[in-house]
Amino acid sequence: MIVTVTPNPAEDLTWHVDRLLPGETHRVAAGASRAGGKGINVARVLAAEGHEVITLATAGGATGARLADDLSRSGLHHALVPIAGETRRSIAIVDETSGETSILNEHGAALSPAEAAALVAEAAHLGRRASVVVISGSLPPGLDPDAIAALVAELIAAGVAVVVDTSGPGLLAAARARATVLKPNRDELAAVTGESDPVAGARVLLDEGARLVVVSLGAEGLLVLDASGEARGIRARLPEPLHGNATGAGDAAVAAIAAALAEHGELRDAGDADTTAARLAMARRATAWSASAVLMPLAGALSPDHAALEAQVVVTTLEPSEPQQPRESA
Amino acid sequence: MIVTVTPNPAEDLTWHVDRLLPGETHRVAAGASRAGGKGINVARVLAAEGHEVITLATAGGATGARLADDLSRSGLHHALVPIAGETRRSIAIVDETSGETSILNEHGAALSPAEAAALVAEAAHLGRRASVVVISGSLPPGLDPDAIAALVAELIAAGVAVVVDTSGPGLLAAARARATVLKPNRDELAAVTGESDPVAGARVLLDEGARLVVVSLGAEGLLVLDASGEARGIRARLPEPLHGNATGAGDAAVAAIAAALAEHGELRDAGDADTTAARLAMARRATAWSASAVLMPLAGALSPDHAALEAQVVVTTLEPSEPQQPRESA
Repeated sequence: MIVTVTPNPAEDLTWHVDRLLPGETHRVAAGASRAGGKGINVARVLAAEGHEVITLATAGGATGARLADDLSRSGLHHALVPIAGETRRSIAIVDETSGETSILNEHGAALSPAEAAALVAEAAHLGRRASVVVISGSLPPGLDPDAIAALVAELIAAGVAVVVDTSGPGLLAAARARATVLKPNRDELAAVTGESDPVAGARVLLDEGARLVVVSLGAEGLLVLDASGEARGIRARLPEPLHGNATGAGDAAVAAIAAALAEHGELRDAGDADTTAARLAMARRATAWSASAVLMPLAGALSPDHAALEAQVVVTTLEPSEPQQPRESA
Repeated sequence: MIVTVTPNPAEDLTWHVDRLLPGETHRVAAGASRAGGKGINVARVLAAEGHEVITLATAGGATGARLADDLSRSGLHHALVPIAGETRRSIAIVDETSGETSILNEHGAALSPAEAAALVAEAAHLGRRASVVVISGSLPPGLDPDAIAALVAELIAAGVAVVVDTSGPGLLAAARARATVLKPNRDELAAVTGESDPVAGARVLLDEGARLVVVSLGAEGLLVLDASGEARGIRARLPEPLHGNATGAGDAAVAAIAAALAEHGELRDAGDADTTAARLAMARRATAWSASAVLMPLAGALSPDHAALEAQVVVTTLEPSEPQQPRESA
């Protein structure tokens, strides 16, 4: 079983306009509202791909009630920690002409100490019964990065694989807690490590304690690097980038990573031939799922042709001495 | 008592961004949600200015429930006709740097024939006890302009003054039903009459049967024209336009017109000195209230200095023979 944790979920509201003209009035069809947040998107993808998954989030106020309603309607197994604050909203306006999506993310309501403790305790309770726990998205005010680090350490000690996709101090705390996989994007990695080169940035997180770092590079695919000095890094990408709605692309990659961990274990015994093959398969799948999410109008879904995309993924290995010069693999 | 009718209300959602950059992700504070729609904005202004007012609208679905909650919280006297469809939303994104507001207006849900009949019957029932009825905003699908015309005619026959602020076929139908005042803006007037000159456009509506036409001209103020060939038209404006949120400026003008009708009767006996004075006062007040609404962040409110603004309004009379050449009045 896989558990996904979303400390700062949102009601996702999406509207489509012919052309977004700032300062103008636009007539639009009724918008879509659904439960959102990165861990919830990950769970949707995993459930659609046949994995047993429980998604854990907070919920408060009228927005939280709508989030709970939508999770119930969707059939996703879920657990919600009630909070006094109002669950935030995330607004997406899709410009049908340019294909660009403009996003407004509300700040999350602060958690009280008791609410933060309840969320972490529930994550630990559910997580101990899981093979993989995914912690995704921003940490709301009141949820200390140290509390997330303690959760990661407790789960790792219990033999559970932990994937963390967050930014800022939480990303560094998860590295120090020896998370199984960290999945920052290029900007998040640079902000935390001060390294503009993603390979150098990943090395910083690995040096801090992370076991594997997957850096999502948008249309340029992703990088996989591990803590072993022996194993070469992997770069995976599609021959041609796909255009569409990038919201949820990173979450689809995280879902692929979690699925690989659930199927193949921790993927971290570098040098083992089976592990190397499993890592290559994970990199292909994460790239294909991420790209196929771009083709879908809403986050948390893959286009039906993701298996065909997987076959097109180009995987290259990185020379340990020349991390920025990928070399085509056999 | 004044009754305002909003056939196509909305949940107004407003977010503020530092700078709206299409295609980018923005961090924003929690948005504001409140009951919106032009007749509801008119009622808010009238209630704040001490008038007895009841606001009538439709409400359906979860959005309708939120609209009802907000009306109850606001203390506005209201009546809601339940509908099966979902009340629409209107999204405003205020760019704090440019001062521009980008608006997405959802189409309204269609009314069933029974729902449309119930709305018109309730408007007639409440309206017969009122001195003034205001019908504001777009007509949703399923609400025939002829039904609005019949309502206007019934109320006029009962001695009630009727102000209509709508566009398209509903505006023409209200003119033919001899509405007391029509309040189109320049674009709405041009679209219905085919006349680009607002004085010529107003004459078309007067010829169709309207008793008085007030054309809102945005930062250029407004025009008042009546059905009598004898009386001169009035143009009112501030010496300098004000900058801010134009949403609700027209509704504030309609509130001022309704207040003037409630205080002074129908304002239509052209040539009577008292009526002329009352019309000039109405034009001043409508201009000042409209401008003072521009200074407020949300529609349905006036800035506290609207009385001071009223003293600054410049009123000119139009020469009957030269409608486009306003002349400064004494």
